[in-house]
Amino acid sequence: MTLPIIIDTDPGQDDAVAIMLALASPEIEVLGLTTVAGNVPVHLTSMNALKVCELAGRQEIPVFAGAARPLVRSPVTAEEVHGRTGLDGPILPVPKMPLQTTYAVDFIVDTLMARPAGTVTVCTLGPLTNLGLALLREPRIATRIRQIVTMGGGYFEQGNITPSAEFNIYVDPHAARLVLESGAPITLIPLDCTHQLLTTKARVSQFKKMQNLAGPAIADMLEFFERYDEAKYGPDDAPLHDPSVIAWLLEPTLFEGKLVNVSIECESQLTMGATVIDWWRVTGRPHNAMVIGSANAEGFFKLLSTRIARLP
Amino acid sequence: MTLPIIIDTDPGQDDAVAIMLALASPEIEVLGLTTVAGNVPVHLTSMNALKVCELAGRQEIPVFAGAARPLVRSPVTAEEVHGRTGLDGPILPVPKMPLQTTYAVDFIVDTLMARPAGTVTVCTLGPLTNLGLALLREPRIATRIRQIVTMGGGYFEQGNITPSAEFNIYVDPHAARLVLESGAPITLIPLDCTHQLLTTKARVSQFKKMQNLAGPAIADMLEFFERYDEAKYGPDDAPLHDPSVIAWLLEPTLFEGKLVNVSIECESQLTMGATVIDWWRVTGRPHNAMVIGSANAEGFFKLLSTRIARLP
Amino acid sequence: MTLPIIIDTDPGQDDAVAIMLALASPEIEVLGLTTVAGNVPVHLTSMNALKVCELAGRQEIPVFAGAARPLVRSPVTAEEVHGRTGLDGPILPVPKMPLQTTYAVDFIVDTLMARPAGTVTVCTLGPLTNLGLALLREPRIATRIRQIVTMGGGYFEQGNITPSAEFNIYVDPHAARLVLESGAPITLIPLDCTHQLLTTKARVSQFKKMQNLAGPAIADMLEFFERYDEAKYGPDDAPLHDPSVIAWLLEPTLFEGKLVNVSIECESQLTMGATVIDWWRVTGRPHNAMVIGSANAEGFFKLLSTRIARLP
Amino acid sequence: MTLPIIIDTDPGQDDAVAIMLALASPEIEVLGLTTVAGNVPVHLTSMNALKVCELAGRQEIPVFAGAARPLVRSPVTAEEVHGRTGLDGPILPVPKMPLQTTYAVDFIVDTLMARPAGTVTVCTLGPLTNLGLALLREPRIATRIRQIVTMGGGYFEQGNITPSAEFNIYVDPHAARLVLESGAPITLIPLDCTHQLLTTKARVSQFKKMQNLAGPAIADMLEFFERYDEAKYGPDDAPLHDPSVIAWLLEPTLFEGKLVNVSIECESQLTMGATVIDWWRVTGRPHNAMVIGSANAEGFFKLLSTRIARLP
Repeated sequence: MTLPIIIDTDPGQDDAVAIMLALASPEIEVLGLTTVAGNVPVHLTSMNALKVCELAGRQEIPVFAGAARPLVRSPVTAEEVHGRTGLDGPILPVPKMPLQTTYAVDFIVDTLMARPAGTVTVCTLGPLTNLGLALLREPRIATRIRQIVTMGGGYFEQGNITPSAEFNIYVDPHAARLVLESGAPITLIPLDCTHQLLTTKARVSQFKKMQNLAGPAIADMLEFFERYDEAKYGPDDAPLHDPSVIAWLLEPTLFEGKLVNVSIECESQLTMGATVIDWWRVTGRPHNAMVIGSANAEGFFKLLSTRIARLP
Repeated sequence: MTLPIIIDTDPGQDDAVAIMLALASPEIEVLGLTTVAGNVPVHLTSMNALKVCELAGRQEIPVFAGAARPLVRSPVTAEEVHGRTGLDGPILPVPKMPLQTTYAVDFIVDTLMARPAGTVTVCTLGPLTNLGLALLREPRIATRIRQIVTMGGGYFEQGNITPSAEFNIYVDPHAARLVLESGAPITLIPLDCTHQLLTTKARVSQFKKMQNLAGPAIADMLEFFERYDEAKYGPDDAPLHDPSVIAWLLEPTLFEGKLVNVSIECESQLTMGATVIDWWRVTGRPHNAMVIGSANAEGFFKLLSTRIARLP
Repeated sequence: MTLPIIIDTDPGQDDAVAIMLALASPEIEVLGLTTVAGNVPVHLTSMNALKVCELAGRQEIPVFAGAARPLVRSPVTAEEVHGRTGLDGPILPVPKMPLQTTYAVDFIVDTLMARPAGTVTVCTLGPLTNLGLALLREPRIATRIRQIVTMGGGYFEQGNITPSAEFNIYVDPHAARLVLESGAPITLIPLDCTHQLLTTKARVSQFKKMQNLAGPAIADMLEFFERYDEAKYGPDDAPLHDPSVIAWLLEPTLFEGKLVNVSIECESQLTMGATVIDWWRVTGRPHNAMVIGSANAEGFFKLLSTRIARLP
Repeated sequence: MTLPIIIDTDPGQDDAVAIMLALASPEIEVLGLTTVAGNVPVHLTSMNALKVCELAGRQEIPVFAGAARPLVRSPVTAEEVHGRTGLDGPILPVPKMPLQTTYAVDFIVDTLMARPAGTVTVCTLGPLTNLGLALLREPRIATRIRQIVTMGGGYFEQGNITPSAEFNIYVDPHAARLVLESGAPITLIPLDCTHQLLTTKARVSQFKKMQNLAGPAIADMLEFFERYDEAKYGPDDAPLHDPSVIAWLLEPTLFEGKLVNVSIECESQLTMGATVIDWWRVTGRPHNAMVIGSANAEGFFKLLSTRIARLP
């Protein structure tokens, strides 16, 4: 039996690794990729999603373009991290497979309404705009989603784009709030977890020496990507964020979390996009998310490299 | 030559009169009605839109259901003004014509992208959620709209739902801000104008004695509707808001306005949804809307009754 | 029997007229003037208060310097209205009487705690910083003040410094909120009232031809002052704000008001300092101020000129 | 040569220990204690300050009562941590020494203006209301203070009273912002530092067995105090916050810090009082505080017990 998922994504090197991990895993059926403005504008994240499917040899995966901008705030991108294309590092061919013509938001709503309730998992690797728009169009999807798994936010490690906020939540905090208040079951994987998943030299070299296309391409992505955080983590280490979302589906025992309340700061310019995680349960607010606080890095990279090695 | 328009609406008695005014006017081609949550929930405003088309004998007008809730804030409705159905007053038959299956937001985007730029006018009679969502999906529509004409907001007459805010803007201030910041040409018809358009006993009786279906039905709507504002305007008078949007297209000389900056309050709970209209131009902010400050009430009601009399 | 008052002020030409009206009225005993940063910085408003006392021949009135800046916001002044000194227009001698050494806030607290409860009225003609600071130091003064009479805010006439805010409230909205939430009895005289009190040519000429020092000096002040609002009110008219506070004590029948809730906007940059006046009582918030909505302009100017004529 | 300091405080058991550390240290001259509403209301913190002076045998230290409430927000106290009196634990006699009649804010301003610029250090152990009010009264004190040393805020350890805020800053964030924006030199000792200073059983027993009055009284205070944080730190450990302020003056080499920007959240209800510390210098905002990130716990407790042992 396989787990049907939709991956909502703004690739992004770490998004690409996450998508490839899903495509390499027989336990998971990827129903479609939906793209969103985030690391780079949506026409580029769409292009990158197509490239990643072709790199994984999976031209049949439908890719749907979604929102061109956040619900309320002005668009923010991160070319300084991901490069001008959003997927700098390896040189990948111009994709031959087409983008679908259906709007990503319509695909999410139609899939969730058509499939049996409680079966489809939505994995989000970028800003939550598409899922927020889907909830605005059809609030009933909240009770039909099996689970939302989101890379985003932080608690002790509060922010990367500002001192208070992580990039995905910062770009569209209003959508994140809609999702967290929707009542759907949510697992949030914050910076506290992903900062334990560092791409050391040894780990990157494992991808580099793989005898397939995917492994060395991933090595190129990671080497580009890790340049950004050099000041914080040293020249050889960088946190690998998005693949943890797929790893959590494949091997939940690699992670430890806590069911708590997460509220999103949408009012203040200073702390915009902060994920207020009531880790010590001092507020009395009801829990609405499983927040992952730590991960087994060795186990995670072993899972990742084992799976990626299976790709063409 | 006729003016093609989309009417985005949450009927609402005054919405119904506005729709009928448009359908009764040969200068205007109604491309479709799009409905939104506002005066009552969207399944009711959709039902009411169908009823109004049938009352006007226009079963061929396509009606599209739109957003079930505002972009950011929780839904607010106004059953105390419009009755439980949103169209209390006349007894209208259950509509036979169907709702379209396309999402209202998709209809707006597709129509604006397919028709020649600068030809289609969008008239909004309710919260601006659908138009906001259309701008999020496809920002390029801003340069393709001929004009947006919006009933909403207030300046000297600041609010009706709160001391600071008019209902349509209050319900979805974030969508209103998206629209006002889109760069599309906008005419805003605020309470300052519509509070000059009072449904006196004499004016209502003109509709009541018409020899068609539409006139007496409108009289029933107005009589229901005006009960609400009795304390403010006396037992026989109530402002008639939405038809001014269509009248402005038909006879602009009935109105006087000023090109100024309009900014929307989206941060503060206290003043949420206030339309900050820089009437005296003290802020230096660029003008983004033609704000109508006054109307010729006699001329307006003459236009309205002449046109409504033509309906079946 | 006379009414003991403290005048808290930031002169300002219209403050000067208000102070002189009080000093010219035997029904009123001015216990002291307290000055605050507002129209101009506090060292200038203090200097101007001394000048006004000497112009009225009342060197014995104690003048206390107060807060140099608002509680929370950065200082805002209005030299474009009042001139560089804050009292441009007449040429007044450098004052010989000294400023008191006690801090204005301490004078307010000590006076209210020492005098019998319910006897001392506090008149505020500028930002409410000093009274706010007094409430922070000694909250019990709220139940000892006879009445606070404040010139500030607006409803239909919402703002003069921004589209949403009147100058006195805009400069220190947090202090205004402290005062309005203190529970002390408050009369608020907003722009809606003072915009009915216009200094026409005829009215100014009455002061000009008085055979004393005060009358012609006031004429010079008014002629300077009215230049600012020329675009709004025409070349000869300008609203005279502050003396209405004293006139309300002397002849309340010149005014009409309503007991309503007034809340102050302190959160949003856009509408900062708006006085949200629940004139139609739609919010259910408890009333906390008598808001004056209209004034008898003829009666007001007759009172003013009669009294000023008595000064030296 | 001794360092003249003012201690602004809301005792509080940990405030009491800090005050006694200062009074026990010959390098420091305590010019006065100023009290503020915080852990408990100001009449209780004033009483406790007197008790602590008498416990240390220093009846000559002048104690001044300050603000009864924060600048803008409603008062918040913490009886659940400190007990009903604010100083629960030891039984201390009713103090015989009197409270000064001068307002604490006036004492701070007058002292800083009278003493040579750059000589007086202000240590704050509670909410920053008094210092904020002093800056409002006399902004020039900012350039006359030698240094402000403040216990408050947090970064990785963001909050104790809410998930986002530390108690002292949460109670009066507007005063904290005034202080941080004043330009005066500031050292901030946040939870990140004080959570390394845990009162273990062994450390408490050192105070308990001292042959003086102060030691055992401190042991009683610490045993009462540490009950509160049991869930977080275990039954025997609790962070000791305030004495670090005095220790930083006595032995700065016990601490490590970084000069960064600290901004205070004053807008959002959700994150009110958060200290946004730009630890990674990603914002480009100018540094305005030395933030202490870590402390040598062994050295700190050795210093503390050595000094306390000298008291009567």
